[in-house]
Amino acid sequence: MTGQRLPGEFELIARFFAPLAGADRVALGLVDDAAVIPPTSGTEMVATVDTLVAGVHFLADDPPDLVARKLLRVSLSDLAAMGATPRFYLLAIALPGEIDVAWLEPFAAGLAVDQAAFGVSLAGGDTTATTGPVTLTLTALGEVPAGEAIRRSAAREGDDVYVSGTIGDAALAVALMAGGSSPAEAAEQEHLLDRYRLPRPRVALGPALRGVATAAIDVSDGLVADLGHVCETSSVGAEIDASRVPLSPAARDALAVRPALMETVLTGGDDYELLFTAEPSGSGAVAQAAERGGVAVQRIGRIVAGSGVRVVDAGGREIALKSPGYHHF
Amino acid sequence: MTGQRLPGEFELIARFFAPLAGADRVALGLVDDAAVIPPTSGTEMVATVDTLVAGVHFLADDPPDLVARKLLRVSLSDLAAMGATPRFYLLAIALPGEIDVAWLEPFAAGLAVDQAAFGVSLAGGDTTATTGPVTLTLTALGEVPAGEAIRRSAAREGDDVYVSGTIGDAALAVALMAGGSSPAEAAEQEHLLDRYRLPRPRVALGPALRGVATAAIDVSDGLVADLGHVCETSSVGAEIDASRVPLSPAARDALAVRPALMETVLTGGDDYELLFTAEPSGSGAVAQAAERGGVAVQRIGRIVAGSGVRVVDAGGREIALKSPGYHHF
Repeated sequence: MTGQRLPGEFELIARFFAPLAGADRVALGLVDDAAVIPPTSGTEMVATVDTLVAGVHFLADDPPDLVARKLLRVSLSDLAAMGATPRFYLLAIALPGEIDVAWLEPFAAGLAVDQAAFGVSLAGGDTTATTGPVTLTLTALGEVPAGEAIRRSAAREGDDVYVSGTIGDAALAVALMAGGSSPAEAAEQEHLLDRYRLPRPRVALGPALRGVATAAIDVSDGLVADLGHVCETSSVGAEIDASRVPLSPAARDALAVRPALMETVLTGGDDYELLFTAEPSGSGAVAQAAERGGVAVQRIGRIVAGSGVRVVDAGGREIALKSPGYHHF
Repeated sequence: MTGQRLPGEFELIARFFAPLAGADRVALGLVDDAAVIPPTSGTEMVATVDTLVAGVHFLADDPPDLVARKLLRVSLSDLAAMGATPRFYLLAIALPGEIDVAWLEPFAAGLAVDQAAFGVSLAGGDTTATTGPVTLTLTALGEVPAGEAIRRSAAREGDDVYVSGTIGDAALAVALMAGGSSPAEAAEQEHLLDRYRLPRPRVALGPALRGVATAAIDVSDGLVADLGHVCETSSVGAEIDASRVPLSPAARDALAVRPALMETVLTGGDDYELLFTAEPSGSGAVAQAAERGGVAVQRIGRIVAGSGVRVVDAGGREIALKSPGYHHF
């Protein structure tokens, strides 16, 4: 049984993508060669691009609406890490012949849901054929007040290290799916899987951290690896206390059964939480930002002189890690 | 014999892509989650995205430097059609396992050459693995003075229709390669192939046409199809005289041997010339814009009431076309 074949590119744009363009004059029904975006006075544009490939970043039979929402959310997380407010996105999709209307319809519906939730709209795109897997590239555009973007490279010795939300859920979901048959209950596994499929980009926390965080990054490669990126670009080191890393109840239960999964929590990635640094005198401002951001933040360590990330347990003993984080190749 | 394997993502960025980032604080060595772009006062941002897939838009064994340059130029052509001046680009590349340093090195070198030629720099990107063909997605960002972007949708009855440069070279190259063994001389075939491999985006003409052209588009789908897009979005029709369509000497020679290739010229696409409309009273301003743009422009017809594109010969007789242009699916 084959689904309804895709219409031509222009009909496809008119049917699935033009409804995602805003009513303003930016995208104008996606009929122009490019989008025209008037900047808000006093702001700078923040731009990021991410690609998701079927079979690499998601499974070919994952629900298309969730794939679409993850695609958008991953980029919104990058904007949040810069302290930017999201505004628009451009979408380039390369589709193999087997993709049909039955796939594209929920894909566009997923985008529609999250556009509304995050206050962004489609400004432009490209739709093309491929002989390979579905390849989705999203460029997200946001804004920050001029000069106020939060950088990775400005962490200083003595800063506290914080992380938002909970860490490890997505990586534990993947580890548990990969066969370590665990006694975790179905509902808890569902919580972990949901966190894997649908990141929660901290779009309110990011802007609230402007002027509060000295440096920030979103946790995509893994907590230790991403803190390592902050350290490397800031020319500092960091020490974090594994016992302070915030865990969901589901993650806590999984670790109770298999404590060795703590390395997966620390290095697994796909958390899309914000990892940031702030001066100790800024702890009150951090708490206020968390309040405005609608998500808990937890102090997990501090920035030290030197280089690299040292992970210790509650007793101060160093925890050796086999691998600090995800490698893309 | 296998080439040198790719290093990890961070080393790959440091080695091949960080040198393409500008010295300003926009991309900051590509270490942040996103680029921060200060807008030039009084301008709007113009954004466009295009994907090229190996085996679909270029051949897997095409020289990587030419692939890179075509990728960049295709997007710069979109900006030119809006009257925008290019500033930055973001690059998302999905690479299969067989891609090695020997491919990536000339690819990055090609970008470096064209960055310098067109005055743009790399602001950010994403590098990922794919099980499919090389998939390259470039987001180009440019600027126009606020309110001065040239739209597709503003052609009016009575406007003249112009096109820059010459039309049909790229499509003739493909047609001749596809086996119509022709007596065209090697040098001429080389000219056609070169036009196919390396578009000349009209980045100087586009901005010069602001306030002069009533509507514009770049010719990528084919002259007739792209004029059709202008007509449809502007709710008008057009009539063009095939004998006025500007041809290169190589194209003229190919047509002398096989006159039926005229349909290929009119509908083949990949020209990356600017097709635009202007009021008859603006012909002097058009000539000045062409002068400033460094490329010839030719009046080929006019906008009429109604809908659709009618192609006539020098005697005013309608030329029937089998297919108006490229279909993406």
